[in-house]
Amino acid sequence: MAAVKVHGPPLSTAVSRVLACLIEKDVPFQIISVNMDKREHKSPDYLKIQPFGQVPTFEDEHITLFESRAICRYVSEKYVNQGTKGLFGNNPLTKASIDQWLEAEGQNFQPPSINLLFQLSWLPRMKLEQNQEAIKENEEKLVKVLDVYEKRLGESRFLAGDEFTLADLSHLPNTQYLLSWTDRGELITSRKNVERWWGEISGRDSWKKVLEMHNAALPTKA
Amino acid sequence: MAAVKVHGPPLSTAVSRVLACLIEKDVPFQIISVNMDKREHKSPDYLKIQPFGQVPTFEDEHITLFESRAICRYVSEKYVNQGTKGLFGNNPLTKASIDQWLEAEGQNFQPPSINLLFQLSWLPRMKLEQNQEAIKENEEKLVKVLDVYEKRLGESRFLAGDEFTLADLSHLPNTQYLLSWTDRGELITSRKNVERWWGEISGRDSWKKVLEMHNAALPTKA
Ligand SMILES: N[C@@H](CCC(=O)N[C@@H](CS)C(=O)NCC(=O)O)C(=O)O
Ligand SMILES: N[C@@H](CCC(=O)N[C@@H](CS)C(=O)NCC(=O)O)C(=O)O
Repeated sequence: MAAVKVHGPPLSTAVSRVLACLIEKDVPFQIISVNMDKREHKSPDYLKIQPFGQVPTFEDEHITLFESRAICRYVSEKYVNQGTKGLFGNNPLTKASIDQWLEAEGQNFQPPSINLLFQLSWLPRMKLEQNQEAIKENEEKLVKVLDVYEKRLGESRFLAGDEFTLADLSHLPNTQYLLSWTDRGELITSRKNVERWWGEISGRDSWKKVLEMHNAALPTKA
Repeated sequence: MAAVKVHGPPLSTAVSRVLACLIEKDVPFQIISVNMDKREHKSPDYLKIQPFGQVPTFEDEHITLFESRAICRYVSEKYVNQGTKGLFGNNPLTKASIDQWLEAEGQNFQPPSINLLFQLSWLPRMKLEQNQEAIKENEEKLVKVLDVYEKRLGESRFLAGDEFTLADLSHLPNTQYLLSWTDRGELITSRKNVERWWGEISGRDSWKKVLEMHNAALPTKA
């Protein structure tokens, strides 16, 4: 099997989502470097494959694709018979339920969690001022979403049912960074079922391999 | 065919998206009223089917589903052989391309367009104060997205290719309201290819029927 290509740095949340999916599906891949400090993601050549100038972009022998969740759906369908077989379900009803929770992640969880990461981790590292109102507003939104998850995960082992699926996987990057890079980890650890779920999904071999790639990519500190 | 159920007011953007899809697919449906003024979307009974307390929720004999884009994907797959047949593609590659642009709508177009609608239409009607900074920020974001669409629609009749698909359909509600309810319609009409595309997608019978449902739902003015 020829390796597929993923353009973008493994440390990016959206790139990590795709990498976790490829590892779950046992799909060999090759990372094509996009140096975001040098703004290569806004270069004319890159904009030809990702017109919004974002990472990741995915490439195989048949297609060039952007949008991490669309890439995950495509990969899961194409390699349905290998790796984690139920990642995107095996019949229209489980697929619909996975898709529902994957949309909930993209529409409800992603916006407040990425905004919090931006405020609580990125701005301080850049020595830029935080917006306290934005922090409060996004934390409140995230609390509401996590309260829904807490209830759901009291009834169900994973978001879409008894199996680990794309719906869970899609939460890995932002949740990891909330826990590792901000002081708001309590949002996760104070919720019994969410914490149990987080332990289970973050303990998967796929995610451990992505974290190894993160560690390898981080600048080493003396 | 027993009618499927859609819970929520037709005037809601997310409900409209699902209605347009059902009409495209020739699927008979029944609207179940959810009175949002009376906060029925936050009632214990409604939260049982939509835990985030949002509309729409979809129901057929097999499944209860929320998230408008997940509902559209499910409906398009289930009724693949009726109505607009290519709405979600007919092979993995076209499906992936449609999904990519549908994600771009949900991730890139939806947030700034809904925020602008909130600021420019909803707040004034409620006689609440607008946030000029939020207006500016969201307008700038939307301009960038529409510039990408302008280029894409110069190369391609519809977002995902030569056929009208879910990717186009998903843009109907917010674009309609930007044009009808705000003074920022120029965002659309000043872009040649976007305007050509808008004329084509908004002229579809499905959308005209949704607009008739909107008109029937609007309070009549003396
Ligand atoms: N919806 C896109 C979002 C991708 C995204 O936001 N990527 C970030 C890095 S995690 C990026 O490229 N940011 C640069 C920019 O937006 O200019 C996806 O899921 O692929
Ligand atoms: N991502 C959801 C969004 C649904 C949504 O935002 N619905 C609005 C009406 S258009 C709503 O129910 N708002 C009430 C609330 O959020 O409390 C979908 O696409 O179905």
